[in-house]
Amino acid sequence: MQTKKIVNDGARAVEEMLQGVLAAHPRHIRAVEGSPRSIVSLNGPRPGKVGLVIGGGSGHEPTFLGFVGKGLADACAVGNVFASPPPDPIVECAKAVDGGAGILFAYGNYAGDVMNFDMAAEMLAMEDIEVRTVLSTDDVASAPPGEREKRRGVAGNFFVFKAGGAAADRMLPLDECERILRKANDQTYTVGVALAPCSLPQTRRPNFEIGPDEMEIGMGIHGEPGVERGPLRTADEIVDDIIDKIFAEMAPSRGDRVAVLVNSLGSTPLMELYIMNRRVAARLADRGVETHATWVGNYCTSLEMAGASITLHRLDGELQSMLDHPCDCAMFRAG
Amino acid sequence: MQTKKIVNDGARAVEEMLQGVLAAHPRHIRAVEGSPRSIVSLNGPRPGKVGLVIGGGSGHEPTFLGFVGKGLADACAVGNVFASPPPDPIVECAKAVDGGAGILFAYGNYAGDVMNFDMAAEMLAMEDIEVRTVLSTDDVASAPPGEREKRRGVAGNFFVFKAGGAAADRMLPLDECERILRKANDQTYTVGVALAPCSLPQTRRPNFEIGPDEMEIGMGIHGEPGVERGPLRTADEIVDDIIDKIFAEMAPSRGDRVAVLVNSLGSTPLMELYIMNRRVAARLADRGVETHATWVGNYCTSLEMAGASITLHRLDGELQSMLDHPCDCAMFRAG
Repeated sequence: MQTKKIVNDGARAVEEMLQGVLAAHPRHIRAVEGSPRSIVSLNGPRPGKVGLVIGGGSGHEPTFLGFVGKGLADACAVGNVFASPPPDPIVECAKAVDGGAGILFAYGNYAGDVMNFDMAAEMLAMEDIEVRTVLSTDDVASAPPGEREKRRGVAGNFFVFKAGGAAADRMLPLDECERILRKANDQTYTVGVALAPCSLPQTRRPNFEIGPDEMEIGMGIHGEPGVERGPLRTADEIVDDIIDKIFAEMAPSRGDRVAVLVNSLGSTPLMELYIMNRRVAARLADRGVETHATWVGNYCTSLEMAGASITLHRLDGELQSMLDHPCDCAMFRAG
Repeated sequence: MQTKKIVNDGARAVEEMLQGVLAAHPRHIRAVEGSPRSIVSLNGPRPGKVGLVIGGGSGHEPTFLGFVGKGLADACAVGNVFASPPPDPIVECAKAVDGGAGILFAYGNYAGDVMNFDMAAEMLAMEDIEVRTVLSTDDVASAPPGEREKRRGVAGNFFVFKAGGAAADRMLPLDECERILRKANDQTYTVGVALAPCSLPQTRRPNFEIGPDEMEIGMGIHGEPGVERGPLRTADEIVDDIIDKIFAEMAPSRGDRVAVLVNSLGSTPLMELYIMNRRVAARLADRGVETHATWVGNYCTSLEMAGASITLHRLDGELQSMLDHPCDCAMFRAG
């Protein structure tokens, strides 16, 4: 059975989405002339400022598109659904936001994205634009401890990009922006749970199979296999499992401060996310960890996938200051 | 087959959600002491200010809870899933935010809500607190033209509450707040489309039946019957049908200004909403109507129902000023 979707032509879904996005947010973003998959902040880029360029496949909205704006990303290269953008729109993003202080690439660690962003960096180097790259690798379940560099980037992107965007907006030099963004990634831990698949607009077929009473811990945002499949458990049991996995690695001490993101993969509603957050807050309090701020909602989705993820982002003074730095984006505001 | 949900005990879902909401948003909201279903803005209410009290059933988040904050609602009475709150928490909301300038009730036009808010108003009158009531009636498909007072309130609540909250935040007297909120409602038109049902956490059973290839125009946010059921059409066809219905009644003139809300009923993702918005923007441009601002996302949901609604809110200078007035709520910021 095909999934019902409100689309015209599945093959044109990303183009048409982008047209709708630009129509909705004319005060925040524009497309680069002649490069419709390169979306640029109207208010962020300026001379002397490091340009933060993010990007990746579509279908995770508001990631990545929604985080373009002053105080966060300067530009976003937009791929097809669940597919990396090619080098050209990435290059066009970088050129459009180049303020002469260098470009910082930040995106999730997926082979296709790495290949395309690296090619873009080489093309930019030939034009004497310096590029640094930080891959987000917050998905704890996607590789064992000690192999963090193999992990995927998921909802924790939100905190990673936020830190880098704040650093750049404060006119810090490229070295510092890179250091801060890298530190933010090192302090970001996400584990997800999937309950039901999504389907791509081109096929409208489920992107994975899962039993009517099953859930899977650690599944990726494109349906990559997780670490445990089993019967659907209660919200508290699910949160405990996720938090145990995060704590095992993060090893928070009493008095540590964190920011929390409880994220829907798509169709899991706010009611369920807040029920999860109740338990997250209790677990953090039990551990003596202070919660500086909490976000709950659709931040990094997989179209209409059912499920959620929990991210903890450990703060020091510097990261807290970056998190609290104001931003004003197409689909997100803070500060 | 039961719907999968991340819950503990369906009967306690609203209580647990509220605990999670309060844990997430301690800088914005609190529960009234001894009345956990009465949620109050920390920063909005003050002496001399009209208190705006909203409320209704749970399951529509971020409506109503998420719109409590400075510049929008002062308090929200929280019912069970898809059920009106009883009078007591409504009374407690009003008392908690009473600044001596009167209380304005604003909520969707549903029999249960009307009964309970009216009882609350009578109880408050006995304590010499003056209450005015405005029912939102933006759902064009829920009653014929000429019977607007019978219509339900749906996603357009967002604009209606926003106008009233701005008026109150500007310290306008009760008469003026009521007039502006009523005018905002008169200028707000919503039509929805449903593709797939939701299920309540208590039962986890679909709340209506719909064929695998069907959609229904005009269905209400609790699954109330709509006006046309038929095969799923393209995004452009759906938007055209909805916009035609709204234009037929709103009769916009060239040069009119509107605000737009393209709202997900729950599991319909941003990609599809933006594809819809592309067509909304084109239809408004064709008609010579200026779009002042556009919101796209989950604003008035029905748990995980699939589908969307489009709201047009016609602005004059006064309503535009109210819409642009800043607000800072638990789940929404603007201005």
